[in-house]
Amino acid sequence: MINGIEEKEFQRVEGGVCAAAGFQANGLNCGLNKNKEKNDLGLVVSDVLCSAAAVYTTNKVKGAPILVTKKHLAATGGKTRGFIVNSKNANTCNADGEEKAERMCELAAKALGVNPEEIVVASTGVIGEILPIEPIAAHVEELAAGLSPQGHAKAANAIMTTDTVMKEVAVEFTVGGKVCRMGGMAKGSGMIHPNMATTLNFITTDAAVSSEMLQKALRDVVKVTYNCLSVDGDTSTNDTVLLMASGLAGNDEIAAEGEDYDNFKSALYFVMMHMTRMLAKDGEGATKLIECTCGGAPDLETAIIVAKSVIRSPLLKCAVFGEDANWGRILCAIGYAEADFDIDKVDVDISSTGGCVAVCRNGAGVAFSEEEAKAVLSADEIGIAIDLHQGDVSAKAWGCDLTYDYVKINGDYRT
Amino acid sequence: MINGIEEKEFQRVEGGVCAAAGFQANGLNCGLNKNKEKNDLGLVVSDVLCSAAAVYTTNKVKGAPILVTKKHLAATGGKTRGFIVNSKNANTCNADGEEKAERMCELAAKALGVNPEEIVVASTGVIGEILPIEPIAAHVEELAAGLSPQGHAKAANAIMTTDTVMKEVAVEFTVGGKVCRMGGMAKGSGMIHPNMATTLNFITTDAAVSSEMLQKALRDVVKVTYNCLSVDGDTSTNDTVLLMASGLAGNDEIAAEGEDYDNFKSALYFVMMHMTRMLAKDGEGATKLIECTCGGAPDLETAIIVAKSVIRSPLLKCAVFGEDANWGRILCAIGYAEADFDIDKVDVDISSTGGCVAVCRNGAGVAFSEEEAKAVLSADEIGIAIDLHQGDVSAKAWGCDLTYDYVKINGDYRT
Repeated sequence: MINGIEEKEFQRVEGGVCAAAGFQANGLNCGLNKNKEKNDLGLVVSDVLCSAAAVYTTNKVKGAPILVTKKHLAATGGKTRGFIVNSKNANTCNADGEEKAERMCELAAKALGVNPEEIVVASTGVIGEILPIEPIAAHVEELAAGLSPQGHAKAANAIMTTDTVMKEVAVEFTVGGKVCRMGGMAKGSGMIHPNMATTLNFITTDAAVSSEMLQKALRDVVKVTYNCLSVDGDTSTNDTVLLMASGLAGNDEIAAEGEDYDNFKSALYFVMMHMTRMLAKDGEGATKLIECTCGGAPDLETAIIVAKSVIRSPLLKCAVFGEDANWGRILCAIGYAEADFDIDKVDVDISSTGGCVAVCRNGAGVAFSEEEAKAVLSADEIGIAIDLHQGDVSAKAWGCDLTYDYVKINGDYRT
Repeated sequence: MINGIEEKEFQRVEGGVCAAAGFQANGLNCGLNKNKEKNDLGLVVSDVLCSAAAVYTTNKVKGAPILVTKKHLAATGGKTRGFIVNSKNANTCNADGEEKAERMCELAAKALGVNPEEIVVASTGVIGEILPIEPIAAHVEELAAGLSPQGHAKAANAIMTTDTVMKEVAVEFTVGGKVCRMGGMAKGSGMIHPNMATTLNFITTDAAVSSEMLQKALRDVVKVTYNCLSVDGDTSTNDTVLLMASGLAGNDEIAAEGEDYDNFKSALYFVMMHMTRMLAKDGEGATKLIECTCGGAPDLETAIIVAKSVIRSPLLKCAVFGEDANWGRILCAIGYAEADFDIDKVDVDISSTGGCVAVCRNGAGVAFSEEEAKAVLSADEIGIAIDLHQGDVSAKAWGCDLTYDYVKINGDYRT
């Protein structure tokens, strides 16, 4: 058990958000992004009405698309046919934001021949600039006409902003003897911080799960995946994780806890954990993934708080970029974590494919070879293992190094 | 009233920690720092036993010098003759840390002919490397022999680490008809974050103030100065603010609240606020000071939380570095501030010697001239004024931009 969830390995499959039966997707450039090679408008639709669950940013400034999505899911009792999404403009802090977000749903619904309330919406990009609806209106028919089970990558491309790689994960799992699939796509690179830790994330499955159990699983898994991810300490205004279940796999609907639910939840953890790692590794300007595991904790809260505190320290992030084994900064970040434990019992190791080095025992430094430490830190995925020696609960958190490029990207984001 | 304190102007004077009557200082290079031009050992002593007050880091990892300073102040009932301080090594997370810190006090006390418990100690620098005591022992006699009222700058130089400028402020003020003086020195550049927001800071005064009132004033003023400063979101292990009052100005001791106490507190605010600004402006790699004023708040806590949230946003800090008027990031940071207010009433202006531009009204963007915004942001001190329109309380917080040099300095700090 880590992060309070049974970690299992699953068979990976291709297909992203279209890996599960009954989902189609498409993406295109409608002109919001001046780079015609880059999609800026995406659509993902299920053949049948899905159960849906969602979690959103905790920021008081909430993007207009979030308000509209919440309203639509409330109106349909947590059911949806799909979503329309754009990048380059967050449609946030604009007087006409809700009107525009509603209009996006109407346009998509008309093209699909469904009820506008059965469509939800998301946007990502610059805050506070009016969203031009014309380019979207002019391309929505083309977008819907091009939907296909092969369109997942076009949609995944459409949600990217400063992301340098497309983020898709899909797996196969079994529920009640039926083979099910689940796939997701995510975008996010900067302005990523607990809670939540992603801007946009969409997961589809053909497992049959009630809306209630879907929401429960999503809330539990978000807590130990996206909410344990920090790139820069900023919390975005548009963060949304949407989980849709079509039920086309034919399993008996998961409507209560039990073996089927645990299996489903483990698959969801696998998908979201791997997307979390991809988000961390592709953090704005990042060259290295940092995975911090806090073990020996008295409870999950303590383990999470300590692991998160370490991966968000700007000083540690710079040291990792510089491949400098400045472990005092790890201990410093453990020390200001707002949790109750004895700092004098803490052990710290750093590790990677380049080896493992013990740097701290009982809260004090131990002699180590700088050469070995350098070998560990020269890898592009760095592990930091903390043992509090005060229990047997473990949690992981994910982050990345802080580099010149982070500053460069964000010094002039709007141009 | 701002920050809950009466803001007054005071006559500035020269002399740093020696501006007040009865204080002498010295600093030299003892060899901890290989750069012989840079002092690494300082000593500040009062002719008479002083009342003292101190506040320390909230980090669980506390530097050994903090433990020893606390012990000594407890043993003397809050009295001290002075302090010895070194840079380059934090004497933290070392098994022999307390022993070494005690030894520093003993060495200084012997050279001065006073009781070791009447001396306190501070260290700053790398965490987790054993502090070599020999260089200090070999130079402490010379350090004490060279004490003088002109030695303040030598001591201020000794506490600098990555600081690019020396930080001293001193003022004259009047208590009960007697002219008093107060002066301080500070160091700190990175690992600066509420709470506390400085690594080392020492303030001396010749006003007569009881230890109790000294502690009360210090706690109140730290809350709205150093604790409203963030450079990078890390909280150091060795933060110490020490305030010493010799009483040599001859005023009737301030032993209760009243006009004299308010005057003293305003002077303390002036000194600490100006040192806070100097620390922010000299943040590691910083090119610009950011001063955020949150007005229209229902209470001081809300005003402080909102102002702090803005100045610590890495995305905003990068935008200020890039002179990009990306005000959506200001609103985003206001939005994730953990306080209770209506985001739809918020106004935001940015200003500097280059002018003033309104960027947000009622939580939504307003059209502004990019040219005028550029003129504002090209200055080296940037003001961000927030009006919550929900009360009449104001607070300020201070930060700096995030630049390539921050990454460079911290990518390889130990070498």
